[in-house]
Amino acid sequence: MGRAPSTSGFSLEPFDLDPDLDRALELIKKSGAKIVGVQVPEGLKRMASDLARGIEKETGAGVIVSGDPCYGACDVDLELCRVADLVVHIGHSKMQVADPLVDKVVYIEARMRADVKEVVEMATDLLSARRVGVVTTVQHVHKMGDVVGVLEKKGVEAVVRSGGSRTTYPGQVLGCNYEAARNMEVDEYLFVGTGQFHPLGVALATGKKVVAADPVTGSVSVVDPTPMLKRRYGAIARAMDAVRIAVLVSKKPGQCRMDLARKVAALGREHGKNMVLVYLDRVEPEVLINLGVDAAVCTACPRIALDDQAKYPVPVLTPPEFELLLGELKGDYHFDEIE
Amino acid sequence: MGRAPSTSGFSLEPFDLDPDLDRALELIKKSGAKIVGVQVPEGLKRMASDLARGIEKETGAGVIVSGDPCYGACDVDLELCRVADLVVHIGHSKMQVADPLVDKVVYIEARMRADVKEVVEMATDLLSARRVGVVTTVQHVHKMGDVVGVLEKKGVEAVVRSGGSRTTYPGQVLGCNYEAARNMEVDEYLFVGTGQFHPLGVALATGKKVVAADPVTGSVSVVDPTPMLKRRYGAIARAMDAVRIAVLVSKKPGQCRMDLARKVAALGREHGKNMVLVYLDRVEPEVLINLGVDAAVCTACPRIALDDQAKYPVPVLTPPEFELLLGELKGDYHFDEIE
Repeated sequence: MGRAPSTSGFSLEPFDLDPDLDRALELIKKSGAKIVGVQVPEGLKRMASDLARGIEKETGAGVIVSGDPCYGACDVDLELCRVADLVVHIGHSKMQVADPLVDKVVYIEARMRADVKEVVEMATDLLSARRVGVVTTVQHVHKMGDVVGVLEKKGVEAVVRSGGSRTTYPGQVLGCNYEAARNMEVDEYLFVGTGQFHPLGVALATGKKVVAADPVTGSVSVVDPTPMLKRRYGAIARAMDAVRIAVLVSKKPGQCRMDLARKVAALGREHGKNMVLVYLDRVEPEVLINLGVDAAVCTACPRIALDDQAKYPVPVLTPPEFELLLGELKGDYHFDEIE
Repeated sequence: MGRAPSTSGFSLEPFDLDPDLDRALELIKKSGAKIVGVQVPEGLKRMASDLARGIEKETGAGVIVSGDPCYGACDVDLELCRVADLVVHIGHSKMQVADPLVDKVVYIEARMRADVKEVVEMATDLLSARRVGVVTTVQHVHKMGDVVGVLEKKGVEAVVRSGGSRTTYPGQVLGCNYEAARNMEVDEYLFVGTGQFHPLGVALATGKKVVAADPVTGSVSVVDPTPMLKRRYGAIARAMDAVRIAVLVSKKPGQCRMDLARKVAALGREHGKNMVLVYLDRVEPEVLINLGVDAAVCTACPRIALDDQAKYPVPVLTPPEFELLLGELKGDYHFDEIE
């Protein structure tokens, strides 16, 4: 568990920064960038000013740090891209988004040091299939070889597939995208990573059994999507009588689904709803309180509705949930993904 | 105190919307705008969805409402301007700002109905000069004739001057700009409007006596800048030992002072401080906590430092306060204004 071979000395437990940070410094020097932007997610923000000083010292460029929260590669600071010649974006892997400003961004991933072998070995006890899909998040994706190795030793065939344009590595999933899990012929999945949301997402997106192995807490579990589904059908039921409904559209380049929002608004109007398109950077309870709406359909990050419903004063639905409400979508629960 | 002659029926107590709303509807129709943005400050946000529906019905354009908070004409939603053909901005008078995107904005002021005559008559008892400068905010500026009339009846000469490019009307001040008060030969000022900040700003920007007359509460008072000054010198003293200092630069088009921020950063570095430029939309306590800085210099709206210091974990100074701290500015307190 040695440190990554970065010579620049920017490292933050429990992460190693991608050694590409050195490459980024070279790129800055070669590009002749005069103004370099730095964008860092909240958990790593404390390193930003040291990183800024380091870049200034090593390259001679002036550095501007993004002060707004950053929630993922979907959340590139476009205003920072407008004032900087090159932007160093820390902690996320590259995401293809339409805005050409994003071409200025160099992505420096943050890789968790945590070992995965032990927890994966424990997880095999919960697997019943002999062939499983393996998925993880970018923080652990460099350990995929270890995961596959342990599974094979236990006689389990690991299936690892590439996702779409939003992800960089085979087996990588995002809160909003499970392409690396879908479209494979397996009956079970192993998710390696932290938190409840991603393994739940795999379960809801595939409808299959998911075993979650958390290399940080060392715990393993079989995902139970029932409580989440109950909460979501509850939110849909509470939104049934809503008349004034906001359709939220994100300004974040990787979360902006304006076309989908227009379709959602048109569909609501066909059903007699008073739909208002709302364009915003951050979805917050005050927005819905101040607008005085009865409900909202969120076309931004699906986690806003699924993870944070409790903090909103009115039901916040994903687009497929709203279609369920209107009776336009039938059958099983449909997980919202951004493609 | 009848309603303004808007035929569109969008009105919200205690404000009348500028009758130019009808002009805006005509403009939208004539311009052939397909997508119209609507931006409304928080206090009037509840009208946004009705306004959106009204515009859609009357003009056939599709409407998108800005969901982010709006604090003034300085705070035009540039992302909304990027997706809309024309933006209707409610509640503030036009401000000249450098960004050409702002040319898409039509400003619809909100005018307070509250009568001013009675409170101005009361205020004359507190005036000792026979010649006073008169200033107000855009919400009451249409009542300037009434203010001057009452003063003249009481034998007081009213001096009303135009401000600079940030304001639209003679006698109009902003939280960040007191040009309409400065540069006139008077010993006293009468401020007509609500709140404590603007009359304090007049007192600190001019160093003269200010009588405040609030048409909403009906109260009159002589402004005492001493408590504010004590708080500010306290913040400066607490920042004395700060080493790691953020220089905050706003993304809001009318609050962005990047050149000033660079000067502030250079000055701090000359004095051995570790300065980091931070570009952001909203200044919030979490930003300073997460960055781990000892203090901040805010080049955005001066009210952030002066009104909200209590909510920040570290001292937040205006640029002239930082110069005072470094000993680069001598003499009296210097109020931060944006020009």
